[in-house]
Amino acid sequence: MNKRLTGLMNWLDEKNYDFAFIQTKANVFYLSQFYTEPHERLVGIIVFPTSEPIMICPNMERAQAKQAGWEYEIISYNDSENPWILLEERLKKQLSVANSIAIEKEHISYTRANALSNMYQEVTLTSVEEKLYSLRLIKDDNELAILKQAAELADFGVEVGVHAIKAGKTEMDVLALIEYELKRKGIREMSFSTMVLTGTKTADPHGNPGLREISRGDFVLFDLGVVLEGYCSDITRTVAYQEVSEKQREIYETVFKAQLQALAVCKIGTRIGDIDLAARNFITNAGFGQYFPHRIGHGLGIEVHEFPSMSENNNDVLQEGAVFTVEPGIYVPSIGGVRIEDDIVITKQGYRSLTNYPKELMIV
Amino acid sequence: MNKRLTGLMNWLDEKNYDFAFIQTKANVFYLSQFYTEPHERLVGIIVFPTSEPIMICPNMERAQAKQAGWEYEIISYNDSENPWILLEERLKKQLSVANSIAIEKEHISYTRANALSNMYQEVTLTSVEEKLYSLRLIKDDNELAILKQAAELADFGVEVGVHAIKAGKTEMDVLALIEYELKRKGIREMSFSTMVLTGTKTADPHGNPGLREISRGDFVLFDLGVVLEGYCSDITRTVAYQEVSEKQREIYETVFKAQLQALAVCKIGTRIGDIDLAARNFITNAGFGQYFPHRIGHGLGIEVHEFPSMSENNNDVLQEGAVFTVEPGIYVPSIGGVRIEDDIVITKQGYRSLTNYPKELMIV
Repeated sequence: MNKRLTGLMNWLDEKNYDFAFIQTKANVFYLSQFYTEPHERLVGIIVFPTSEPIMICPNMERAQAKQAGWEYEIISYNDSENPWILLEERLKKQLSVANSIAIEKEHISYTRANALSNMYQEVTLTSVEEKLYSLRLIKDDNELAILKQAAELADFGVEVGVHAIKAGKTEMDVLALIEYELKRKGIREMSFSTMVLTGTKTADPHGNPGLREISRGDFVLFDLGVVLEGYCSDITRTVAYQEVSEKQREIYETVFKAQLQALAVCKIGTRIGDIDLAARNFITNAGFGQYFPHRIGHGLGIEVHEFPSMSENNNDVLQEGAVFTVEPGIYVPSIGGVRIEDDIVITKQGYRSLTNYPKELMIV
Repeated sequence: MNKRLTGLMNWLDEKNYDFAFIQTKANVFYLSQFYTEPHERLVGIIVFPTSEPIMICPNMERAQAKQAGWEYEIISYNDSENPWILLEERLKKQLSVANSIAIEKEHISYTRANALSNMYQEVTLTSVEEKLYSLRLIKDDNELAILKQAAELADFGVEVGVHAIKAGKTEMDVLALIEYELKRKGIREMSFSTMVLTGTKTADPHGNPGLREISRGDFVLFDLGVVLEGYCSDITRTVAYQEVSEKQREIYETVFKAQLQALAVCKIGTRIGDIDLAARNFITNAGFGQYFPHRIGHGLGIEVHEFPSMSENNNDVLQEGAVFTVEPGIYVPSIGGVRIEDDIVITKQGYRSLTNYPKELMIV
């Protein structure tokens, strides 16, 4: 049995939970390697403390689940059957009484949680999510190899974008070309909506790309990533077009140095909040504190934003194999914004950057 | 107040519900015109039977909500505040006691539903979703105008794809070009993952585009749509490359005629299941019944799959202003698959097709 399943089983056993019911795409994939998007149809995994797990999925996905490597029981159903009835029958054969079930409380629907709790009298629903997040936090070698490839494709995306910059091209022209070249390499899904922003639009950390045309003196900001074999990358680079003002240069250099400060403390044992503070203190001392409104980064893996949240009040410490982003930014409304983001893995020696596109100020 | 809000308020009043709490992206947009993707952050609308509604959203989205046209109260919060405490305080000022709250039971998380129900003693949670679906079912003139434009962009996407077909090009090459041309027109989001399948891969209704190269005698199937101003389109066309076998032609003509049979019954008052049966009976009589495994279509609007489900056992009847897809298909594993899909609106005179790319067999 894989280490992920046994990790969860040991926890269930220790906590004295009867079983866990897992039904989000990311956690199902993590436990089974089965990557599926069933929309409203039920796909779930039941994990018991000491006996083998069970999957439930539509008939038409049964073969794919096995192909992905699921070697345990599968309950499958067609569209005219109620999967909850099948599931209850099967569970009752194994457990006539249950006292506590661990579920994805933040992500399971009210209807589904009730369908489960109605199977047993006076059952308590507890959360399985923190446990799964802590398991997913540390990436194994196979995961790191995929994340590295995904990061290289993100580097390539920025490279395509930088080469496409030209007066009169729109943000969407450049964005379209980046995704075109990535899709031709077989990438079916970006890890989030690609961002290409220009000029003062770069000053909005959540801006939307549109038909604004690039012109001399613009900052051009790229924020993008790909999904590769179920894992995400996420890179941000900002370049200048043809010229920069002194103020733009000052903003750029401040963000660049702030990111180096944050990276310098990325090693086993560092309190996560101190990574945020390393960048934040540098930016504040440079007089731009009010223009850095977001946390330094977020965990990265099966989801583009996953555990941990890299904010200043996070007291957890870094462990080997943790993968996350480091992405300080300064956004001055009348001038523009700069963000520089890399994907980082914590190693025995300190850290390694998975993304490697150059980040010194580039005037193209 | 807009007709959508008053429609919901009247229903709450009639049912004697204290309020409704709406928090999915699609329903928030429908009621407020505010299109937002807040991820884990709470954005919700509280609708009362007889008093003005309230929105809750992050501080940084307050201005956008107002800009989208929300003219009622907004409770907003920053990342260090608990929105549920703010919401409870505000609700308690208005309602010291509540007996029943209408929620999106199928789509609200267990945690959120509990946060609401814990505000009031012995409150009953009921479903608001069927009511919202029935309101969203009938599109107004503004929605129809946007859906028409979205459909024209889908036509354009197929046109780009058909022109890109060439021996040696991969599915992903063609897909990449389609999305490139749409993005250059300002389209930021496709309504689902674009599908370009070739050869026998067309026989899988849920196939994944990849690096297979197009060759002589292939079917090439396109299934795609765009999101425009919050509304979706969805078109499927299948063409043949350079030549077709007699069997391929027979499959194509059967699907084509089956779609015409289904369209012929699209008018006010038709039982929805009869649209499915019109196509299904034709395909079955032609000997391909076992190769048409899915329903004839689905409602289309803010979501690409919305109410109603156009399956043979749906006894609801068509009303003016309903928008849905009509998409029969035949998938023969060793030969290939054909699907033809249009977006249809029910009018006083019968129906109008929003998508208009030619659908007679095309050998390119």
